[in-house]
Amino acid sequence: MKSCPKVAFLGSSGSYSEEASYKFFNGKLIPVNFKTINLIFQQFSENNFDYAVVPIENSIEGSVNQTYDLLYTSKAKICGEVFLKIDHHLLANKGTKITQIKRVFSHQQAISQCLPFIEKNGFETIPYYDTASSAKLIASEKLMDSAAISSSRSAGIYDLQILKKDISINQSNYTRFIILSKNDCEPSGNDKTSIIINLKHVHSSLYHALGEFASRKINLTKIESRPIKGNSWEYLFYIDFEGNKKETLCRSALQNLKKHCNSIKILGSYKQAL
Amino acid sequence: MKSCPKVAFLGSSGSYSEEASYKFFNGKLIPVNFKTINLIFQQFSENNFDYAVVPIENSIEGSVNQTYDLLYTSKAKICGEVFLKIDHHLLANKGTKITQIKRVFSHQQAISQCLPFIEKNGFETIPYYDTASSAKLIASEKLMDSAAISSSRSAGIYDLQILKKDISINQSNYTRFIILSKNDCEPSGNDKTSIIINLKHVHSSLYHALGEFASRKINLTKIESRPIKGNSWEYLFYIDFEGNKKETLCRSALQNLKKHCNSIKILGSYKQAL
Repeated sequence: MKSCPKVAFLGSSGSYSEEASYKFFNGKLIPVNFKTINLIFQQFSENNFDYAVVPIENSIEGSVNQTYDLLYTSKAKICGEVFLKIDHHLLANKGTKITQIKRVFSHQQAISQCLPFIEKNGFETIPYYDTASSAKLIASEKLMDSAAISSSRSAGIYDLQILKKDISINQSNYTRFIILSKNDCEPSGNDKTSIIINLKHVHSSLYHALGEFASRKINLTKIESRPIKGNSWEYLFYIDFEGNKKETLCRSALQNLKKHCNSIKILGSYKQAL
Repeated sequence: MKSCPKVAFLGSSGSYSEEASYKFFNGKLIPVNFKTINLIFQQFSENNFDYAVVPIENSIEGSVNQTYDLLYTSKAKICGEVFLKIDHHLLANKGTKITQIKRVFSHQQAISQCLPFIEKNGFETIPYYDTASSAKLIASEKLMDSAAISSSRSAGIYDLQILKKDISINQSNYTRFIILSKNDCEPSGNDKTSIIINLKHVHSSLYHALGEFASRKINLTKIESRPIKGNSWEYLFYIDFEGNKKETLCRSALQNLKKHCNSIKILGSYKQAL
C-alpha cells in the first residue's frame, strides 16, 4: 500500500488550507501545519513534507502577494490547483450574545471580505494568523467579548457557536490554492502552465510578449504584476496559460517569448481544476 | 489670499500619508485625518474636504488593493501623484531596551517589509491601522514590552526613541500616493492618465487592447489586474499611460480601446511626479 504523503498547509486544524488539502488528496494525507506561508516556503527543501498547499488567489480580494513573491525565489514546482468555496461565519463561545462582542479576530483577507458587516456592528478588528487560529484563540482563551470569523468546520473543531452565518460581502467567494511539489508532474491532457517573466526594458514589451500567446491562440487564464524588490517601479509578470509546457504549441510560444524577456521561470504545468 | 485646501489623509499625525500631503501641497493645507482608506472614500462626496491623499502602490509590497478597488466605484478623480521615500524604524518608549520587546505594532505592509528583522528577533506582530497610529498607541498606553514600526517623524511627534534604525528589507522603499479631487485638473504638458478597463470576453482581448497603445507608441507606466467582485475569476485592468486624455494621440487610443472593452473608466490625467 502506498503511504500517505505528508502535506504542509497554512493555519491550525480547521483552516481553509487544510480543507483544500483534504479535497485535493481525497482525504489521504498526513497533515503538517504551519503558522505562515513564509515558513512553509522556508522549510520546503528540508524534506519535512512532500507537498504544500498554499492560497494564491481569492475571487474577491485578489492575489495573495506573499505566495506570488515567494514563488519567484523558491525552487518549488506547482503540481496542481484546487478551488474552495469560502463561507465566513461569526463564531463565538457558547453563551456569548452578539451584543457582548467588541472585537473580531481573523485573517486580514477574511476581515476585508466581511468589512460592511463588521463596520455596521462597530466591532474592532484584530488581524490574526489565519481564520482557524482565530477560532482556536477565542475558544482556548474563553474570550466572551470577542468573536472569530472562520468556517463552520472550525466551529465544530473548537466547539464554538455560529453567532451569524454568511457574513461575507459576496456569496461568490472562492479561493484558489496551489499544490507545491519538489518535482514536475506528468501531463494530464487538460493542463495549465504558470510562468514568471521579467520583460526587457524596451517599448511595448508586454504587448509583444502577449502576442506570442495570441498568435498561437493560447488562452491566458491570469496575468498578475508584482514589483521587483530593490528595483523601484519595475515589475515581474506572472502568467497562467492553458496547455502543457511539453506540447508543441506551448513550447514554441515559450521559445519565442525569450526574445522579449530578460528571464522566464516556469513554475509548472498541472491539471486545471476548473 | 487663497485659502488653504482641506486635505484628507490616512492615519494619525506623523503618518506617511500626512508627509506625502505636505509634500504635494508645499506645506499649505488644513489636515483632516482618517482611520481607514474606506472612510476617506465614503466621505468623499460629503464636502468635508477638498482633496484626499491615499497610498496606491509601494515599491516592495506592490499595489494597495483597497485603493484600487475603491477607485472603481468612487466618483473621485486623480489630480496628482507624489512619491515618498519610506524609512522604517523600530520605535519604543524611552527607557525600553530591545530585549524587553515582545510585540511589534504597525501597518500590515510595514510589518511585511520588516519581516526578516522581526522574525530574527522573535517578535509577535500585531497589525494596526497605520504606522503613526502604532507609535501613538505605544506612547499613550506607555507600553514597555511593545514597539512600533514607524517613521522618525512620528518618533519626534510622540516622544519615542528609535531603538533600531532602517529595519526594512530593502532600502529602495518608496510609496506612490495619489491626490484625489472632485474635478479634472488642467493639462501640465507632462501628464500621465489612469484608466480602468473591463475587457470583452473574447480571445486575446488584453493583447489587442494593449495594441492600441503600442501602435501609437504610448508608453504604459503600470498595469494591474483586480478581480471583479461577484464575477469569480474575471478581472478589471488598471492602466497608467503617459500623456493627457485631451491630446490627439491619447484620445484616438481611448476611442479605439472601446472596441475591446465592455467599459472604460477614466480616473484622470495629471502631472507625472517622476
